Amino acid sequence: MASRSHKQLGEFELISRLCAGIRLGRRTILGPGDDCAIISASRRNLLLTVDSMVEGVHFDLRWGRPALLGARSLAVNLSDIAAMGGSPTACVVNLAVRDGVGQRTLDRIYAGLRNSAHEAGVDIVGGNITRASDLSITIALLGEVTGGAAMRRDSARPGDEIFVTGALGDAALGWRLLSGELTARGVARSYLVDRFFRPPNRLRAGQRLAAIDPTPSAIDISDGLLQDLGHILERSRVGAEIDASSIPLSPAYRAVMGDDISYAFSGGEDYELLFCLRPGYRESELTRRLRAPVRRIGRITRQKRLEVIGSLQPDLSKHGAGWDQLRSSPLKRLD
Amino acid sequence: MASRSHKQLGEFELISRLCAGIRLGRRTILGPGDDCAIISASRRNLLLTVDSMVEGVHFDLRWGRPALLGARSLAVNLSDIAAMGGSPTACVVNLAVRDGVGQRTLDRIYAGLRNSAHEAGVDIVGGNITRASDLSITIALLGEVTGGAAMRRDSARPGDEIFVTGALGDAALGWRLLSGELTARGVARSYLVDRFFRPPNRLRAGQRLAAIDPTPSAIDISDGLLQDLGHILERSRVGAEIDASSIPLSPAYRAVMGDDISYAFSGGEDYELLFCLRPGYRESELTRRLRAPVRRIGRITRQKRLEVIGSLQPDLSKHGAGWDQLRSSPLKRLD
Repeated sequence: MASRSHKQLGEFELISRLCAGIRLGRRTILGPGDDCAIISASRRNLLLTVDSMVEGVHFDLRWGRPALLGARSLAVNLSDIAAMGGSPTACVVNLAVRDGVGQRTLDRIYAGLRNSAHEAGVDIVGGNITRASDLSITIALLGEVTGGAAMRRDSARPGDEIFVTGALGDAALGWRLLSGELTARGVARSYLVDRFFRPPNRLRAGQRLAAIDPTPSAIDISDGLLQDLGHILERSRVGAEIDASSIPLSPAYRAVMGDDISYAFSGGEDYELLFCLRPGYRESELTRRLRAPVRRIGRITRQKRLEVIGSLQPDLSKHGAGWDQLRSSPLKRLD
Repeated sequence: MASRSHKQLGEFELISRLCAGIRLGRRTILGPGDDCAIISASRRNLLLTVDSMVEGVHFDLRWGRPALLGARSLAVNLSDIAAMGGSPTACVVNLAVRDGVGQRTLDRIYAGLRNSAHEAGVDIVGGNITRASDLSITIALLGEVTGGAAMRRDSARPGDEIFVTGALGDAALGWRLLSGELTARGVARSYLVDRFFRPPNRLRAGQRLAAIDPTPSAIDISDGLLQDLGHILERSRVGAEIDASSIPLSPAYRAVMGDDISYAFSGGEDYELLFCLRPGYRESELTRRLRAPVRRIGRITRQKRLEVIGSLQPDLSKHGAGWDQLRSSPLKRLD
């Protein structure tokens, strides 16, 4: 079978092959292979999200590591569940395959995806495969609200303090190193590239955060700090003041970019959590509670605008106020 | 705003624009605009499915009627829920947009999708937009098992009689008329093309079918009668005998194809239901009960093979035993 290409295999055979060996949890009554999956009823409210990774837009197969790309396609969805403080349960996968992508690459992508799903306790309950001009993986992920309430974007209030997990800008640099837009060597390069391929898993951190009363407002940073904070400000009808000098940067980021904090502000692909809490929480206390590094970066204000204070200022002329897939297309420049 | 192209609009603005005016049901606690949608818990088991429509594979924008294409992208998912006998509740939509597709086209696609969702009682609870080389619409649809049990592919038993709803092959002919592979004029052409653009809604029929005891085995015919019946045979470990002369054909089908029943056997895109019942049900009784035309086409046998009897035999050399997206690519020939 291994020598047959996906063009010789039919869609049904390919799905069966890719889903072979998938372990299903107790909640899944019927997994891949029927018109729909059947999942047990639950008393908890459901979470539902969809995200897509497209070759030439979000990744390039020439970068290699197809298993990591497969894992990453689920990770970006897990991040949405983490930002609500929920627990992921089941997903369906739409795989679009272009001519020239071999069965081995697909097998590796799916192996990475299956591992990632297993680690996160997510059942891959169904899928669809189609031809297309780009290779792409689109995942719809179902989850549950595990605590009392989900964390939303519309509940930030003036006076709230703004925190982020992890360090920002690393994945954006990794992506630009891979695409040849930036150069770096050695440990810094490896670290940043790895940060692109392996987004952080903030599911536990999100769940612990959602247990705080009142429920924090939160979002995951996928399109860049400024753009994603902007979504909270817009939905909550508030403003914010951010202290640029407090943005958490990794040593690798500093080694490559020095004082240029623009990628940390608007690079995108971080998949860290940004959240807003009533005043009084210390960074060290939150870091212990969430079991993830937490940094205070500013506060929510009544004035409906975003102000960046501090001596370091991001140069936003490079990539606007955030990474927007429809506006920017660095990968396309490679072609 | 109408004069701005989607390249000037950002992803967030575009989603907001496309989702504007979406009416949400009581079950939806939080709709589009956050990391995830939140949907109320339900005591019923869940159904989950995903399907994708890709330009150049499943449709061609040059055919026009973008609103119907938008509606159709949901209809093909509704058909999966119908085949389980379930009730659809909520969906998330991934829209991939290529250069050259204007805002007006996207607006029309989404208008058709919104209408279709409203008619089916489905909430569009979230979405994602990305750039790609093809326009595509991928929908993950959530539903509920409404009766006692869902209809599955793995429960057909020897002796069961096999039925289908509607007429077969029309949509496959419509598709080939649109793509220029076949020609026809007048009423027959309009009828067949319309059957491609507007798949039948068999949700009610599916729900009424699932109420029969014992629960029928069922599937929707999306890849052609032979291929989809094949899935039931494989999963149920049985065979079947089909009487070719009993396959329901429309007058338009007969006008264009005469005695050639191959498209009815393996054309695909029908989105009719195929189901298996213990002997004793009359076509007229089922037609009344399901409020859809029902025809008996054969029976399930113990021998694990599919036999087509009758004087008319399908010519399967043309498109194999069913339409498989990865194997066939008639649309690509247009380019």
